[in-house]
Amino acid sequence: MDTTDFEGCVGVDIGGQSIKVGMFREEQLRIIDLDTPAEYATARGAILGAVRELAGGTPRGLGVGSPGPLNWRTGVMEWTPNIPWRDVAYTELGSALGCPVRVDNDANVAGLAEAVLGVGRGHHVVSGFTLGTGIGFFTVIGGHVYHGRLDVEGGHQVLNPSPDAPLCGCGAHGCLEAYASASAIEARTGKRPEEIDDPEFWKEIAGYLAWGITNINVLVCPDVVVLAGGMTKRGAVLMDPLRHRVQEMSCVLPPPPVEVAELGARAGVYGAIVLAARGHGE
Amino acid sequence: MDTTDFEGCVGVDIGGQSIKVGMFREEQLRIIDLDTPAEYATARGAILGAVRELAGGTPRGLGVGSPGPLNWRTGVMEWTPNIPWRDVAYTELGSALGCPVRVDNDANVAGLAEAVLGVGRGHHVVSGFTLGTGIGFFTVIGGHVYHGRLDVEGGHQVLNPSPDAPLCGCGAHGCLEAYASASAIEARTGKRPEEIDDPEFWKEIAGYLAWGITNINVLVCPDVVVLAGGMTKRGAVLMDPLRHRVQEMSCVLPPPPVEVAELGARAGVYGAIVLAARGHGE
Repeated sequence: MDTTDFEGCVGVDIGGQSIKVGMFREEQLRIIDLDTPAEYATARGAILGAVRELAGGTPRGLGVGSPGPLNWRTGVMEWTPNIPWRDVAYTELGSALGCPVRVDNDANVAGLAEAVLGVGRGHHVVSGFTLGTGIGFFTVIGGHVYHGRLDVEGGHQVLNPSPDAPLCGCGAHGCLEAYASASAIEARTGKRPEEIDDPEFWKEIAGYLAWGITNINVLVCPDVVVLAGGMTKRGAVLMDPLRHRVQEMSCVLPPPPVEVAELGARAGVYGAIVLAARGHGE
Repeated sequence: MDTTDFEGCVGVDIGGQSIKVGMFREEQLRIIDLDTPAEYATARGAILGAVRELAGGTPRGLGVGSPGPLNWRTGVMEWTPNIPWRDVAYTELGSALGCPVRVDNDANVAGLAEAVLGVGRGHHVVSGFTLGTGIGFFTVIGGHVYHGRLDVEGGHQVLNPSPDAPLCGCGAHGCLEAYASASAIEARTGKRPEEIDDPEFWKEIAGYLAWGITNINVLVCPDVVVLAGGMTKRGAVLMDPLRHRVQEMSCVLPPPPVEVAELGARAGVYGAIVLAARGHGE
């Protein structure tokens, strides 16, 4: 991994349990891992301390990946489901540090990492799903996160709008997330995805995800589709029928390659560093 | 319409019945309309003559909008359903004329026109469907047609992959095109769309299109969605329930504005001129 372009930039990955602050030095990633405090004021002090320690002073730039909903243009997170922080203005960290700050949501930042440093490297357009409690979606074009009018939310593409279809956390019926997210699987089976081995069950889930990937292919037509998140650890029982079904469902366009993310839990820090170094590209 | 940037560039819009060659001069569009001959060699001579006549010699650039399938990178159309031409290398027109040539498919070129000069002007990301025999799809970002790995084909997003769903021209089941294109409507009712007045029928078609637009919204999140093509002439009986249903189906993202294209049959020439002037943007 050539990280020369990113030296001196610090990435912050905000999670519900921990905050990872990282920087490349001599091509090695140095990380400081903090517990996520209940008060943002506490977190802010710890983050600033960790950034200054890693950078040995003022960094070249700061990138922040945070749970959403998040306004990436202003860098403000008003609230988020899994952390009790309110009205957090991440860009203010830049005033405190004296460097530029770029902010984006965690799915986009992890996707940026996979597109630039991970399994998508070398490709121009990289889209993907992050399979977790919900289903995140990202598209990276030419090494920058794609934003439209607002953030893309491809996990909420509609597979079945009937009132009989499963209810999604968003309030609509039949979103992809209502069929194939970890929480949808738990709600339906009473088990967590890692407790389920039945190949027929995974074939069905693979079918929903392949449907979503087919729609990514015709609407975005990326060079590669990347799947990230814990569920991908199921390996062949999920990925084999998924790739097979993506082939079957392709019509006017050939199917896209489908790859599993390779950066794991560090994707968020990597992506925040890339964001710091490259900016939003607009 | 400020056309100063486009002066000196000639656009060619290839259709099954006619070929339109156009250029702006003193902010007015001048068009030469040719019948589409069965032989490309004949068409080539007529196109070159019309281009030279409009430009008074060598144009600044040439843009060509052509039916597909089409490789926009090489400018080659191997075949197309409705014109008996084979292995047409449009870029060769540039060697003959001594100017750069840019080529793209007709849906993309018409979309580019609407995004830059039509109802989408002023917006950064403009997506849309062209509702005709098939359902074309385009996205324009920052005044350039978006291409991924290949052309996008959002008319083939899957609403229902069941073998019981309507068969699409592409060979798959349940594509949006298999529910809401003019040919799908004719196959189902035995009538052309312009012969059908029943509001309940149009409400159902509006529902399919709204579903497709909802998926555009979450996967691409454009600033505006543009609908083009003859079917939009139905007006309120289609557009009112369509906009209502787009509102109803929105979940995590607010619904996008949905507008009807305003350039009509000249969109293809306008777009080819814009393509000639601006290039592909890569």
